[in-house]
Amino acid sequence: MKINLSLPILLFFLWALFSNLSLAKKETKVVGDPELKTCKHQCLQQQQYAEDDKLTCLRSCDVYHGLKHEREKQIEEKIREKEHEGSPEEHEEEEESSEKKEEEVEEGGEEEEEYPYIFEEDTDFDTKFETEDGRIRLLKKFTEKSNLLKGIENIRLAIVEAKAHTFVAPRHFDSDVVLFNIKGRALLGWVKESETEKFILESGDMLAIPAGTQVYIVNRDENEKLFLAMLHVPVSTPGKFQEFFGPGGRDPESFLSAFGWNVLQAALQSPKRELEKLFNQQSRGSIFQISREKVQQMAPKKTSWWPFGGPSTAEFNLFTKPPTFSNRHGRLTQVGPPDSRSTLLEKLNTMLSFTNITKKSMSTIHYNSHATEIALVIDGKGHLQIVCPHISSRSNSKHEKSSPSNHRISAELKPGVLFVVPPGHPFVTFSSREENLQIISFEINARDNKKFTFAGKDNIVSSMDDLAKELAFNYPSETVNKIFDRKESFFFPFELPRSDPRADA
Amino acid sequence: MKINLSLPILLFFLWALFSNLSLAKKETKVVGDPELKTCKHQCLQQQQYAEDDKLTCLRSCDVYHGLKHEREKQIEEKIREKEHEGSPEEHEEEEESSEKKEEEVEEGGEEEEEYPYIFEEDTDFDTKFETEDGRIRLLKKFTEKSNLLKGIENIRLAIVEAKAHTFVAPRHFDSDVVLFNIKGRALLGWVKESETEKFILESGDMLAIPAGTQVYIVNRDENEKLFLAMLHVPVSTPGKFQEFFGPGGRDPESFLSAFGWNVLQAALQSPKRELEKLFNQQSRGSIFQISREKVQQMAPKKTSWWPFGGPSTAEFNLFTKPPTFSNRHGRLTQVGPPDSRSTLLEKLNTMLSFTNITKKSMSTIHYNSHATEIALVIDGKGHLQIVCPHISSRSNSKHEKSSPSNHRISAELKPGVLFVVPPGHPFVTFSSREENLQIISFEINARDNKKFTFAGKDNIVSSMDDLAKELAFNYPSETVNKIFDRKESFFFPFELPRSDPRADA
Amino acid sequence: MKINLSLPILLFFLWALFSNLSLAKKETKVVGDPELKTCKHQCLQQQQYAEDDKLTCLRSCDVYHGLKHEREKQIEEKIREKEHEGSPEEHEEEEESSEKKEEEVEEGGEEEEEYPYIFEEDTDFDTKFETEDGRIRLLKKFTEKSNLLKGIENIRLAIVEAKAHTFVAPRHFDSDVVLFNIKGRALLGWVKESETEKFILESGDMLAIPAGTQVYIVNRDENEKLFLAMLHVPVSTPGKFQEFFGPGGRDPESFLSAFGWNVLQAALQSPKRELEKLFNQQSRGSIFQISREKVQQMAPKKTSWWPFGGPSTAEFNLFTKPPTFSNRHGRLTQVGPPDSRSTLLEKLNTMLSFTNITKKSMSTIHYNSHATEIALVIDGKGHLQIVCPHISSRSNSKHEKSSPSNHRISAELKPGVLFVVPPGHPFVTFSSREENLQIISFEINARDNKKFTFAGKDNIVSSMDDLAKELAFNYPSETVNKIFDRKESFFFPFELPRSDPRADA
Repeated sequence: MKINLSLPILLFFLWALFSNLSLAKKETKVVGDPELKTCKHQCLQQQQYAEDDKLTCLRSCDVYHGLKHEREKQIEEKIREKEHEGSPEEHEEEEESSEKKEEEVEEGGEEEEEYPYIFEEDTDFDTKFETEDGRIRLLKKFTEKSNLLKGIENIRLAIVEAKAHTFVAPRHFDSDVVLFNIKGRALLGWVKESETEKFILESGDMLAIPAGTQVYIVNRDENEKLFLAMLHVPVSTPGKFQEFFGPGGRDPESFLSAFGWNVLQAALQSPKRELEKLFNQQSRGSIFQISREKVQQMAPKKTSWWPFGGPSTAEFNLFTKPPTFSNRHGRLTQVGPPDSRSTLLEKLNTMLSFTNITKKSMSTIHYNSHATEIALVIDGKGHLQIVCPHISSRSNSKHEKSSPSNHRISAELKPGVLFVVPPGHPFVTFSSREENLQIISFEINARDNKKFTFAGKDNIVSSMDDLAKELAFNYPSETVNKIFDRKESFFFPFELPRSDPRADA
Repeated sequence: MKINLSLPILLFFLWALFSNLSLAKKETKVVGDPELKTCKHQCLQQQQYAEDDKLTCLRSCDVYHGLKHEREKQIEEKIREKEHEGSPEEHEEEEESSEKKEEEVEEGGEEEEEYPYIFEEDTDFDTKFETEDGRIRLLKKFTEKSNLLKGIENIRLAIVEAKAHTFVAPRHFDSDVVLFNIKGRALLGWVKESETEKFILESGDMLAIPAGTQVYIVNRDENEKLFLAMLHVPVSTPGKFQEFFGPGGRDPESFLSAFGWNVLQAALQSPKRELEKLFNQQSRGSIFQISREKVQQMAPKKTSWWPFGGPSTAEFNLFTKPPTFSNRHGRLTQVGPPDSRSTLLEKLNTMLSFTNITKKSMSTIHYNSHATEIALVIDGKGHLQIVCPHISSRSNSKHEKSSPSNHRISAELKPGVLFVVPPGHPFVTFSSREENLQIISFEINARDNKKFTFAGKDNIVSSMDDLAKELAFNYPSETVNKIFDRKESFFFPFELPRSDPRADA
Repeated sequence: MKINLSLPILLFFLWALFSNLSLAKKETKVVGDPELKTCKHQCLQQQQYAEDDKLTCLRSCDVYHGLKHEREKQIEEKIREKEHEGSPEEHEEEEESSEKKEEEVEEGGEEEEEYPYIFEEDTDFDTKFETEDGRIRLLKKFTEKSNLLKGIENIRLAIVEAKAHTFVAPRHFDSDVVLFNIKGRALLGWVKESETEKFILESGDMLAIPAGTQVYIVNRDENEKLFLAMLHVPVSTPGKFQEFFGPGGRDPESFLSAFGWNVLQAALQSPKRELEKLFNQQSRGSIFQISREKVQQMAPKKTSWWPFGGPSTAEFNLFTKPPTFSNRHGRLTQVGPPDSRSTLLEKLNTMLSFTNITKKSMSTIHYNSHATEIALVIDGKGHLQIVCPHISSRSNSKHEKSSPSNHRISAELKPGVLFVVPPGHPFVTFSSREENLQIISFEINARDNKKFTFAGKDNIVSSMDDLAKELAFNYPSETVNKIFDRKESFFFPFELPRSDPRADA
């Protein structure tokens, strides 16, 4: 009799033991847990239990599940902790990202594997700072998206948005910066050893700023928002950079106020009282609105003769440079090594390019030989297709040995979407029926880069000798030539079907 | 009384709790588990149990053990999963390698630690593609073998084998390639912007191919197999490269056919029906046999005058270049920065060298100051010894502080064996009694490299001043000189004992 | 009734299950465990237990706790094991370091996070070799201290100490070496292809030694200890380098004796008996005392005319070079790209600098734009403050989005302390009341580097235009100017308060 009682308990425990360690399942809600339900059901089924016992049993189910949930979290923490031991200062950052990953896993499964090169405006940017008057958004680390992007792991991209008539407070970075004025009218103050040089920037302007340079920015326009892209190449901490707010007061907190008072008093020869006052005045955040008068005062005197105080201008304007290639279906403009006059672009081995695809058109199928292209859609809508043999469908990767299979990555393009095309990867972009598609690209590792095309004049298939063509296609070379040859180059007409192009594509 | 019953249960559970978490033990079979045996024994021993209870108890032991086993697997999976989270696309690869590692640990223990620099033909190459007519084998990542090879982690080596009269279909790589024709007679088609340049390659020929270049290869010989070594230096994905089959049809699958039909129709201005036909013709794999006539047709016209359509030749032939050093015991030929005419070898900072050790001979004891030597035995037999203080025997590494101990790595050499010698590491190679030993090497980081020797003319010991010699050896300098000086340089006579040289060596 | 009994047991188990898995807590002592205490207390409280039962219960508490402790260790081991699987050859090294980390965690909590840039003489150096007459100490890998130092992860620093009249035996390294003579009088023998070049080194002398070069060192002084700093830049194994003892005998063990006897006999054409004798003579360790006569004999003939056998000298002497900047509060001397005549410093992109801060003085608040400064205090006492926004206090990092917070790192400076200042990070050093503070620095990534200051002449705040200053500080520009402007540059007077400056600072 006693045994009869203790055996169910034994079995209950065996089951409990098992289930509470079932780490693989990720219950996030304790309430809806099927195990809890079973536990309670089992309590009620026990015929030898008195009513009170049943209640106790039910309560113990709840207690047990609370504990179980807590324990699972502890084990996960333990594992995460162990993983992080090597890099304690990345703790917070990684915790966030691992949470994100978990979500991804639950929601979509292999989202990451499917779209390693596409970055969405909403999900792949973190807001670094935000005030009422502007914000700075930082693209996630490329390697956080996919290890296939290791070649550009040191690079980060930030987008600065500032409302009309705002002041982006002075700061310096521990990264070399390629600044590109996407949209709007900026004034940039570059603090040099004994004076401040002022740059007037328009849409399309590029300015390369070496690490450590103290800069501030003003949105000169009374109505229009200012959008700047900043490509950061960290100098000592790969893939990480920081802003240092030097001058300024409490918000943004000047790093000066982090020094001890005795240090500041000695360095600045001023009483503590006065310094406290100085570092407590500014508290409007790192981006804030200023009056129209202030903006006008900021502007360099236009009457003065250059180089005697007149404004400096950008290194070049990408939008107005003569295009590398142009026809009525599109236009490609490229500035970079070895033809740019920018020593920093040379050092960073980076080229800037602007692609404008006329509506109802497409770029040819092409690939870069050496450059990794980081492309940001700035206007219009369209689509992108990249072919990637690095990602192969699971089904045949193990068995078929004679050739790899190719994976197509498709994405809808609209302003704010960013995509990366690694070297060697053939890709194609096409515009919508209604609007031109405008894309700016940073081409990393630009020296020695060539663009090879697969349709149009001078395409790589037509350039093959006839016999090789016949062997490769197992088809008469005339037919192959007829298919690949065409008069146009690089940009072609193309009409997207009204339905989702990915359905058939 | 009741207590008497519940206490054994309590203790049983304590024991169960403990044992089922004993993760350190790796039981693979549930049946032979000693714990299970104990559990069942205990059931049978319980005198207060009725026969039925005993059966229930026995069954619960089984249930419990199944669960325990499953749970352990879950925890391990959980840990593995956590580890892999950062690099999802390497999942499969790593799972394989971790399995391999486990096997190694169980079977032989420290194989990996003992031979970090030796790569065997059978176990350290993966077959990437294989058809009836040829195959491409890829050496495992150097860092997969040992972290000591981190300096060359970006580099991969592939060996192409093609039967007589075969066609290796057109492709491009996302890596710069140093191609070396080990053996056989090849024709290489290099597709340029508006034509295809044809290269006639013989044994010993080197051709450097920049990333993104479309190439195809023909084995021109009617009988002999073709062997090519390809050193890949990936442009954007360190240690990973891919072949992109551009033209061609279903097998190898052209990456073109991965684009959507609407894209292809627009890009190639051809109806879908025609395109489907085009991309379905070729299905003979990426390496296939072609007729003698086709081979002859492929060959560039010999009658035409260069540069009007005649064949191009390799950048150089390593076997016929004048040797850097030669005596009757051996010959060393080196081509590379700064004397090569290859801009790609310069950029990759890589030198090619060919060592031919006459039978019954040896190279002197020597080391490279800056270069890491990746060496492939292409003919003959012999032995290798490398001394490596990075690997020290366990016994004294902890205690002895006054000096490091050195570890000798010995390996038998035969065609297909590959070995790596890091800079600073003294090594020696010797041939067998019957055959010359022939080795080709890629010397990575070749600029500023010097070869320092320890015996023969101008050796590093004899060059030391006498007093230092006496202090270093605690021995009269005349005796030291007598031992280290000899007339010959670099290659010496040497007769391997008939028994295994490693026994005494 | 029965149920009444089993429910407490049930609850006890639930509690036990929970608590024994509470991995987060790290109990090191089983005895003082509060859980054990609770368990035992609970046994004694059970009124229905007989005395015997209570004893059994108590014993089971002990058993249970032993098991629990063991289990936790197993899980930790399992996790550690899993982590190590990827890099088996670093096993021992990592085990040590993980032990160290655990100690740190237990002792001081977040020591690592608080002081990522400060290295103490006692805890952050490992003694690599030690004999009665000298020792070589190796600074831990920078990335072992903090991932923020990834930019210099390939670099290692060693300090050689040799007593008066000692001989540091010949060796070569698989790393390029920048040797700096901190203190004492050295003679360095540089073994070239056919002779040995001798260098006479004094305090402040720099000599750059390419990888693979065979060198030996003599402390020429009869009384004074010799201190050398060696900056190692490994050629093929990032962050790891090795000494290879070529000549020499048993201690240091010559790597020659690791080759097989048959190899040595063939290479050196000598009978085994003779070789055995040769390699067994030297057993005084890698640093040993030699007689005054030997030291005198070692010295190059001073009478001989250079370049006919006279001594060579260092590439430059840092202490006697004209300073870059100097006033009565301090002096800064810098030698490096592009003005050094050292090709190796150019190649390693490294500058050497010497800072001498007069007592009761300070350097201005300043930062390097591109260089990471590895600084070693060689004389005097003082303090250091670095501001680092990469490390932010936990409290506000999550919530406040408008600006980062800055973290100040303070450290006491005394001879032997080493600190690293990454680019962009503002810092300040100040001397004590009693002594000048002397610091030598290796500035890595020196090309394009600029030093920006925040107080004194040409400081970055005063150089800002007035309106930007007013906006940044929200304060009249005259007041800001009054505070930041001062006549002196770079070094200022400063008196440390008698109490710990960190208290207020």
